[in-house]
Amino acid sequence: MAQENLSVVLHSQGDLRLVGHRSVLLQMHSVGICGSDVHYWQHGRIGDYVVTKPMVLGHEASGRVVKVGSAVKHLKAGDRVAIEPGVPREMDEFFKNGRYNLSPTIFFCATPPDDGNLCRYYKHSANFCYKLPDNVTFEEGALIEPLSVGIHACRRAGVSLGSTSVHLVCFAGPIGLVCLLVAKAMGASKVVITDLFPERLTVAKELGADFQLTVKRGDGPQQLAKSVEDLLGAQPHITIECTGVESSIQSAIYATRSGGVVVLVGLGSEMATVPLINAAVREVDIRGVFRYCNTWPMAIAMLVSGKVNVKPLVTHRFPLEQAVQAFETTRQGLGIKVMLKCDQNDQNP
Amino acid sequence: MAQENLSVVLHSQGDLRLVGHRSVLLQMHSVGICGSDVHYWQHGRIGDYVVTKPMVLGHEASGRVVKVGSAVKHLKAGDRVAIEPGVPREMDEFFKNGRYNLSPTIFFCATPPDDGNLCRYYKHSANFCYKLPDNVTFEEGALIEPLSVGIHACRRAGVSLGSTSVHLVCFAGPIGLVCLLVAKAMGASKVVITDLFPERLTVAKELGADFQLTVKRGDGPQQLAKSVEDLLGAQPHITIECTGVESSIQSAIYATRSGGVVVLVGLGSEMATVPLINAAVREVDIRGVFRYCNTWPMAIAMLVSGKVNVKPLVTHRFPLEQAVQAFETTRQGLGIKVMLKCDQNDQNP
Amino acid sequence: MAQENLSVVLHSQGDLRLVGHRSVLLQMHSVGICGSDVHYWQHGRIGDYVVTKPMVLGHEASGRVVKVGSAVKHLKAGDRVAIEPGVPREMDEFFKNGRYNLSPTIFFCATPPDDGNLCRYYKHSANFCYKLPDNVTFEEGALIEPLSVGIHACRRAGVSLGSTSVHLVCFAGPIGLVCLLVAKAMGASKVVITDLFPERLTVAKELGADFQLTVKRGDGPQQLAKSVEDLLGAQPHITIECTGVESSIQSAIYATRSGGVVVLVGLGSEMATVPLINAAVREVDIRGVFRYCNTWPMAIAMLVSGKVNVKPLVTHRFPLEQAVQAFETTRQGLGIKVMLKCDQNDQNP
Amino acid sequence: MAQENLSVVLHSQGDLRLVGHRSVLLQMHSVGICGSDVHYWQHGRIGDYVVTKPMVLGHEASGRVVKVGSAVKHLKAGDRVAIEPGVPREMDEFFKNGRYNLSPTIFFCATPPDDGNLCRYYKHSANFCYKLPDNVTFEEGALIEPLSVGIHACRRAGVSLGSTSVHLVCFAGPIGLVCLLVAKAMGASKVVITDLFPERLTVAKELGADFQLTVKRGDGPQQLAKSVEDLLGAQPHITIECTGVESSIQSAIYATRSGGVVVLVGLGSEMATVPLINAAVREVDIRGVFRYCNTWPMAIAMLVSGKVNVKPLVTHRFPLEQAVQAFETTRQGLGIKVMLKCDQNDQNP
Repeated sequence: MAQENLSVVLHSQGDLRLVGHRSVLLQMHSVGICGSDVHYWQHGRIGDYVVTKPMVLGHEASGRVVKVGSAVKHLKAGDRVAIEPGVPREMDEFFKNGRYNLSPTIFFCATPPDDGNLCRYYKHSANFCYKLPDNVTFEEGALIEPLSVGIHACRRAGVSLGSTSVHLVCFAGPIGLVCLLVAKAMGASKVVITDLFPERLTVAKELGADFQLTVKRGDGPQQLAKSVEDLLGAQPHITIECTGVESSIQSAIYATRSGGVVVLVGLGSEMATVPLINAAVREVDIRGVFRYCNTWPMAIAMLVSGKVNVKPLVTHRFPLEQAVQAFETTRQGLGIKVMLKCDQNDQNP
Repeated sequence: MAQENLSVVLHSQGDLRLVGHRSVLLQMHSVGICGSDVHYWQHGRIGDYVVTKPMVLGHEASGRVVKVGSAVKHLKAGDRVAIEPGVPREMDEFFKNGRYNLSPTIFFCATPPDDGNLCRYYKHSANFCYKLPDNVTFEEGALIEPLSVGIHACRRAGVSLGSTSVHLVCFAGPIGLVCLLVAKAMGASKVVITDLFPERLTVAKELGADFQLTVKRGDGPQQLAKSVEDLLGAQPHITIECTGVESSIQSAIYATRSGGVVVLVGLGSEMATVPLINAAVREVDIRGVFRYCNTWPMAIAMLVSGKVNVKPLVTHRFPLEQAVQAFETTRQGLGIKVMLKCDQNDQNP
Repeated sequence: MAQENLSVVLHSQGDLRLVGHRSVLLQMHSVGICGSDVHYWQHGRIGDYVVTKPMVLGHEASGRVVKVGSAVKHLKAGDRVAIEPGVPREMDEFFKNGRYNLSPTIFFCATPPDDGNLCRYYKHSANFCYKLPDNVTFEEGALIEPLSVGIHACRRAGVSLGSTSVHLVCFAGPIGLVCLLVAKAMGASKVVITDLFPERLTVAKELGADFQLTVKRGDGPQQLAKSVEDLLGAQPHITIECTGVESSIQSAIYATRSGGVVVLVGLGSEMATVPLINAAVREVDIRGVFRYCNTWPMAIAMLVSGKVNVKPLVTHRFPLEQAVQAFETTRQGLGIKVMLKCDQNDQNP
Repeated sequence: MAQENLSVVLHSQGDLRLVGHRSVLLQMHSVGICGSDVHYWQHGRIGDYVVTKPMVLGHEASGRVVKVGSAVKHLKAGDRVAIEPGVPREMDEFFKNGRYNLSPTIFFCATPPDDGNLCRYYKHSANFCYKLPDNVTFEEGALIEPLSVGIHACRRAGVSLGSTSVHLVCFAGPIGLVCLLVAKAMGASKVVITDLFPERLTVAKELGADFQLTVKRGDGPQQLAKSVEDLLGAQPHITIECTGVESSIQSAIYATRSGGVVVLVGLGSEMATVPLINAAVREVDIRGVFRYCNTWPMAIAMLVSGKVNVKPLVTHRFPLEQAVQAFETTRQGLGIKVMLKCDQNDQNP
């Protein structure tokens, strides 16, 4: 799938006058570009998810309600909403148990074959649209999606049930930064963040990291673990690994305190060689994350109360018509987060 | 036990040169006065705990290490430490399960027959003395004790595992305020605090409460619950009840969202009439707290990183020689927290 | 609502040929009579739930699939299924968090205004119909509903995460017995069951109770608690209260070990006077249950593997045409569980 | 360390008349031989634990109290007890949090440099000696140690909080079998056990395994995972891996249901190559175990109530004088568990 195939879609869900009983029609306002959007654009696939027909991109989104289905009670036309992109199709065992993100038949925006919401008008399940309070902007609403990755990771890690220290292994882009923001907001006292590039650590420091550690290629995993311990004065209770790189995962295991947790957010190659025994005999649990569930209400509460400030994450804005330039900007790794503005009459944050 | 029985004790643990293998000798620095200290002074008992012989008061304390036992490795003379007043005597099932506060044979400062540490010199189990970092003052160290009540209550409540809102029912003194500080630090987005006295709510607002609700005597419990819901826009996930008053407990149950938690911090009369069915059929759990366990390390981490600021809680200071005036101040309910300064050469915070 | 209003309904859901996409049409086979069915019949209401128009009773049920909706994949015509009577209508916060039983808009069989399934033919959400393995009978399938109360109670109690002993306070009918069966199956080592009537304790002993305690009217709650401790050799970790009687709840609190759990299954009057402080300072948690969630798969696994044997609970059977006699039998408290047989061609268990 | 170094030690803790305040002197009765005992005997080390001076072996033990320290209240001379071999030396953060098995300074029988209890007389912390009820034999008491491995593994796995199926990957000796016994006792409905040798699966079947799967060397991990799913009718919620073999760990991850848990009991080489992404994106948690904590009271309750029957595990018995033959028997892999009988006057089970 070549770059010229990227085109602006106004809407793709048939007759806009027809809105399902439990659905809403939205006029889209702000949609952030995610690394996965760029990956589908450039490569036409991510792992087993293959784009085989035209697909609308976009899943970090907010908009305004235009019309509500007959059974919708909690929303009305005019409401500003953030959109949770994953909607379970089946009331299966995962949904019933509160882990609907694991439902194998879930609908998910911009994961083939499901269309995303980077367009002018879009219909979505009303139960997965969350009303934004007046003091939360559309762009903050769109940023709830990446923020949710951080919330889900920190919850899976058990941040704040006594955790005094968190080690964040970061590598690229905004995911490490949202994990940092959430960990601090959920009660982590000392967060050390590690990265290859000192300039990214400077951003992390501004966003609240207590310690920064610049990693050099070639540093041994155990040596790195020792550096983390030295910085914190003790091993961290929790390590959140956002790179997916094998040596970083090794380092994450060695670094974490006995009885602690390593959360794997970054994804690398299918097989990884890791010191599994070191983790096992020290009862350091290894937990992955798949997207998120039950995060939007908490994220809105965090934003409305000012517990997290995600606004600095938006570094670029483009009108929907300039989607190609916007995608190019993300592809080149410029800035942190690029926003596409889908409402021609309101390009404000 | 009349007031004139209050006297200043320099130390009460025999030969100061003899320090147990796993103990430390401390020169006491700052000791806060707790309501229970005043109660023992005035009434000679709290419930089944009866003072039958002279007892040293004080359990909110910090000091400096003078001497360490032969087996102590993590402390040395000169270290500044905060003192956890409860030390398990038996490795019983409660201790082994991480809930040593429930151990029936636990030693506890200033709970008869165990002496407290409001004196010049004091010996304590080294494992229950926690080194203070340089940027944490002795008084902050002493305030870890009341802070621990808040930490334990918020942990028992499950604050921050998805909780977006907390309802604090407060009535008297600093316990409600430390619960507020901790709830905010652990991730609670919206905290509403209720009290009979508007002036106390003003303090709460300064310390971070998002909403304040002045209660009038005679307000019905269900009516109050409705007011809380109206303020928050939804029922709170968690209610922390700090008064022990029957009608407040009723209100706490009615106010809390289905599936939520009511934590009982305040203690009232032995029997209470409450809407137990309302709680049961909405699966609102009712959980009490008894002191705390495993809170000091977390509290120090919070203080050192600036996540909580307890300094404004100290409103009065007296040298140890003026203990009677200090106790009188607390007895009359003046200010928030009264500190006694036990080191004649260092009366700083 | 007088007795003569009880009539046999063949089906009540309109055209049987029309089955929703995600629904199934069932030919009903066995439906147990619950105390709540009798209560609606005799009194026309339970608390705030008032019968204002004719309502089909029955919610302990199993049947055979006659027709499946177009989107149903896990069932086919001819499958034998157990029916979970509660089906969430909204994907609300409770459902998303895995506690759909708390959803305020849930559909529930035979709770006004929702019809039950005590009839010949019945349509239900396919996701809430669970295929029965060949070696599980229709009646066992119907009994999953009361069994689910026991599973939910034991899960809420945390049975088996280290619990060595359980105290069951029982009073009437089969709920106490299913709690007993489940507690033993989930790992409870020592179960003591208390009741007013020795003959019921005999049944309990046959079903696996390790200790029986006959209560006399007038026994003090603390005295009873002491008897339980004496029988077990220690206080129980968990008490499951199935009577709803105030003095029994008091006894349940006094009896339970510090750090333990009291689960309230029985429902009494709106307000209850209980030793809340005793529970609070010993950190004995008080938890209610509302119906159940996520129990059918586990119940089927228990039945198929023989971990619980519910067959002895069925003491009476009537064909659907004799529903009035069947209801009379339950009303008079005869036997344990009365089954109505809805399939004229198959009245087997 | 060669075989001839194995000698019978009568006692090794100095003057038997001196018993610490909180200790007991025991006359040893039955001590099981563990694979680790044989490994120390043959190789003089396990990983970083190196035998540098004569060490008494044995940590699966029971005995009779001869003398109690002055502060011991729960035991008296004549009591029969099971011995928990790990005793924390420090009240450190791990002990305070209820995970004392992770305490780095813990005393542990027969782990260098700490002596074990395979001798005639032995002193131990009274709080880690548990009185055996009359209907539990000394050998059952000794078997609580291996049983504890199973209890800890099943707890860490979360067996019975809704788990309907467990996959046990077994390879050698009794650990897989105790995991099986405990999993069934804690509520697992369907347990499938896999092994290379059909004869061991026959024993597993007799002990309660619901399904057996014979593995062939060369079977691919994903193929094996598929076989497990086919046998159970669905993927297991939990997999307990007892071999430590890399391909088995791979198979364990692939086999486990999304949202489930893999517990690593077996230990292999330091680094393992595993499909970490497959686990991460399906939120299959990977948890290790290190020995156990808080298991003896539960184990005794299980034994006394007959919930588990460990007696069939003992296949060989030798008097202490024939320790060399006994160790040879275990070294050759004969039978399941070999018991050494330390009391010359009572060689009964």
